[in-house]
Amino acid sequence: MSDPQPDPAVRQHVLEHRQALVDALLEWLRIPSISADPDHADDVSRSADWFVQRLLAAGFPEVEVWSTPGLPTVYAEWPSDDPDAPTVVVYGHHDVQPVDPIELWDSAPFEPFVRATAYGEELVGRGAIDDKGQMVYHLFGLAAHLAATGRTSPAVTLKVIVEGEEESGSTHFRQLLLDNRERLRCDVVVVSDSGVYDRSTISVVTGMRGMIECQLDLRGPAGDVHSGSFGGAIPNPATVAARLVAALHDADHRVTLPGYYDGVVPLTDRERELIAALPFDESRWLEGARSSGTDGEAGYSTLERVWARPTAEVNGIWGGYTGPGGKTIVPSEAHVKLSFRLVAGQRNEDVMTAMEAWLDDRRADGAVPAGIDVTATFPRIGVRPCLTPLDHPALQSVTRAMARAFETEVLYTREGGSGPEADLADVLEAPVVFLGVGLPDDRIHAPNEKADIEFLLKGAEAVAYLWDDLATTWER
Amino acid sequence: MSDPQPDPAVRQHVLEHRQALVDALLEWLRIPSISADPDHADDVSRSADWFVQRLLAAGFPEVEVWSTPGLPTVYAEWPSDDPDAPTVVVYGHHDVQPVDPIELWDSAPFEPFVRATAYGEELVGRGAIDDKGQMVYHLFGLAAHLAATGRTSPAVTLKVIVEGEEESGSTHFRQLLLDNRERLRCDVVVVSDSGVYDRSTISVVTGMRGMIECQLDLRGPAGDVHSGSFGGAIPNPATVAARLVAALHDADHRVTLPGYYDGVVPLTDRERELIAALPFDESRWLEGARSSGTDGEAGYSTLERVWARPTAEVNGIWGGYTGPGGKTIVPSEAHVKLSFRLVAGQRNEDVMTAMEAWLDDRRADGAVPAGIDVTATFPRIGVRPCLTPLDHPALQSVTRAMARAFETEVLYTREGGSGPEADLADVLEAPVVFLGVGLPDDRIHAPNEKADIEFLLKGAEAVAYLWDDLATTWER
Repeated sequence: MSDPQPDPAVRQHVLEHRQALVDALLEWLRIPSISADPDHADDVSRSADWFVQRLLAAGFPEVEVWSTPGLPTVYAEWPSDDPDAPTVVVYGHHDVQPVDPIELWDSAPFEPFVRATAYGEELVGRGAIDDKGQMVYHLFGLAAHLAATGRTSPAVTLKVIVEGEEESGSTHFRQLLLDNRERLRCDVVVVSDSGVYDRSTISVVTGMRGMIECQLDLRGPAGDVHSGSFGGAIPNPATVAARLVAALHDADHRVTLPGYYDGVVPLTDRERELIAALPFDESRWLEGARSSGTDGEAGYSTLERVWARPTAEVNGIWGGYTGPGGKTIVPSEAHVKLSFRLVAGQRNEDVMTAMEAWLDDRRADGAVPAGIDVTATFPRIGVRPCLTPLDHPALQSVTRAMARAFETEVLYTREGGSGPEADLADVLEAPVVFLGVGLPDDRIHAPNEKADIEFLLKGAEAVAYLWDDLATTWER
Repeated sequence: MSDPQPDPAVRQHVLEHRQALVDALLEWLRIPSISADPDHADDVSRSADWFVQRLLAAGFPEVEVWSTPGLPTVYAEWPSDDPDAPTVVVYGHHDVQPVDPIELWDSAPFEPFVRATAYGEELVGRGAIDDKGQMVYHLFGLAAHLAATGRTSPAVTLKVIVEGEEESGSTHFRQLLLDNRERLRCDVVVVSDSGVYDRSTISVVTGMRGMIECQLDLRGPAGDVHSGSFGGAIPNPATVAARLVAALHDADHRVTLPGYYDGVVPLTDRERELIAALPFDESRWLEGARSSGTDGEAGYSTLERVWARPTAEVNGIWGGYTGPGGKTIVPSEAHVKLSFRLVAGQRNEDVMTAMEAWLDDRRADGAVPAGIDVTATFPRIGVRPCLTPLDHPALQSVTRAMARAFETEVLYTREGGSGPEADLADVLEAPVVFLGVGLPDDRIHAPNEKADIEFLLKGAEAVAYLWDDLATTWER
């Protein structure tokens, strides 16, 4: 295959609309659609309405606001005139993160502006890249696609769903998907809420880890008791909690839940090769991690550990006296908050049953002695992992689209985190691919969030190529 | 040796003064000398003054109030007219515990009263047995001793020290001892702030565990970081804290600090035999411990574990997110509060050095990986253990005195807790023996504290016998 080449017509259209794209984004960013803050509920609605108007202006024949018990989602549909064209759901969100710590912003978070950088220009403001910027380039990419191909409807049937609660936990998103499953029926989901490896290493995300949270509650004596009178002769729930946490990993830092790794989709040699090809600067990565050392499962690199391997992490532990000075007690209770990051091939439900079996084993081996009651609670089923294999046609389409836009080889990354994207794969039973142009220095969720304008334009270009590519190569 | 017999003269004197003893105690108990509550500082002073007057009335030629940076101690001295008589320091305290939870009291805590019981009469009020009751019977025991022997000064030189801060940590007690070391020079210390095994098992305390507290502070990433982005690839301080706590005991529940057991004075066969002779009701003991199971060092009974074996106990553990819901972080810090109960033969200082060596071992074996910083802080040297061997003459004197008063065989217990009594042994370099008549159902530190009047009278009788016995049997 020859190197993918850009389409001059697409590129020209995108470049001609550079100012329009910037102006649109500046306008949207002035709406402080912070979903986590109830005081901004009206702003989230205004933000939805703003995008509705833009979708209508872009030509979408059907545009709706889907209300939820929480904040509104925008939905739009534009059928291809080719009845055999594949159907694509595009996912993004129009809510933004809170602005704290406000004092670290160089400017007002919702008074966005453009400034020059060493690389061109950037647009600064809350939501610039996460995720309004990525939704805006979809509008311009679609326009370029239509203009360059001379079509009056897109080459693929588009269903755009833009959520209003992504930054506050996507509380109602899964139910919304379930309620509109038929409406959202599709062949592939394109998520635009991600980034590339770095400015000079263009890449595509192939998967995300899932997550399930668990709380261990340990109860020992019916109240705190005196450690002089009873210490050394009754079991201490804090000690037992510690013993459980310590037993959760083996010497190779592998999670000891029975069968935990059974279904795990292993990294292929090719994937490991491509991950190794990424320019990884450990000291810089550690800076991001704010840690002075790496640690983790034996036999895997740092990137493999965070992208492709499941974990068990202590998010919090507490029990007994934690104030100033001392209090010589055997505490009555101890608690541990755990979260398990899961990878493709693992089922959230299996973690729940494995934990019960594991606790039974700990009771049997004496780690949990008589006199200590342990319960494991999983407050919710959590988020599922998702992964699209390297040879999946949709992923290959995205790869080509990005390669044409950026005129470079495209590598692959994954997300260590977990998001509602996996619900799309799960509920809609469709492969999820990621098309995103964020940069690691975009300061998402942090003060002075920004988007590189050249990257937003590349995003628009990649969108135009992707619709064309999917329409051409998709085999139903 | 024939069974020790009571002295009719002593007994008669004590019984004749029953009402006087009750009246004196009722009067003292009306002074709410709560040392932990600064609002009651004046009451603690009034309590000291009250006892000063009683000591003067009892005939002590020298009575003083020793002020401290905190609350006052009462000191009194009465030399024997026999220059070869042994010198005895009597220790007790005149401050009392707070009264919370006040709503569980049947009457006002500082409006003491006498009521009938199945066994005779009891006196209810805060401080009835802990420790004003035990100080009052010393006054009457001494009077009985003088009356029965026809002496005008005690058979032993008495130095009475009655602390005002015992219930709030004896903050200034050790320094007071150091400052008055010469004045307090003695052959033996008699502590009257303890009890018997139960109503029908009369016993004497032979020792107390010491204690040293330690805080482990673990620092990982410079701030909490996202467990999706970094989890599984950097060390988690909460996990490492748990690993340390888990490693602190081996499979036999023995503490793993290097050399921890090196100096431990082992239980003799005779001691184990006598402990086993105590009527031990495990289910009742567990009720007191509020636990549904026992646990501890292999090879020892429950009483041996709390009385004669050292421990390492987690008093508190915390790190990461501990609020409602979840927060998927790798926490920045974790902390553990530990306390070590020590037994005779262990030096508090050695625990400090052993902990450092132990942490070095944990760094070497990988339990503490690079990226986690651990420090161990010992806020104070703590309280030393004390133990008087069964064959010590002073202990034998106390045993005979108790046996005469109660007309029964006397067994031995120890205290699992730690107290300023050990400082007496340590600073004054004298053996400490315990003469106390508390009962396990006296509700010390709890609502409706009480003292059995018959037991207070037995205490007075035992005091009278003890001074005589020590004077007769002591070999300088």
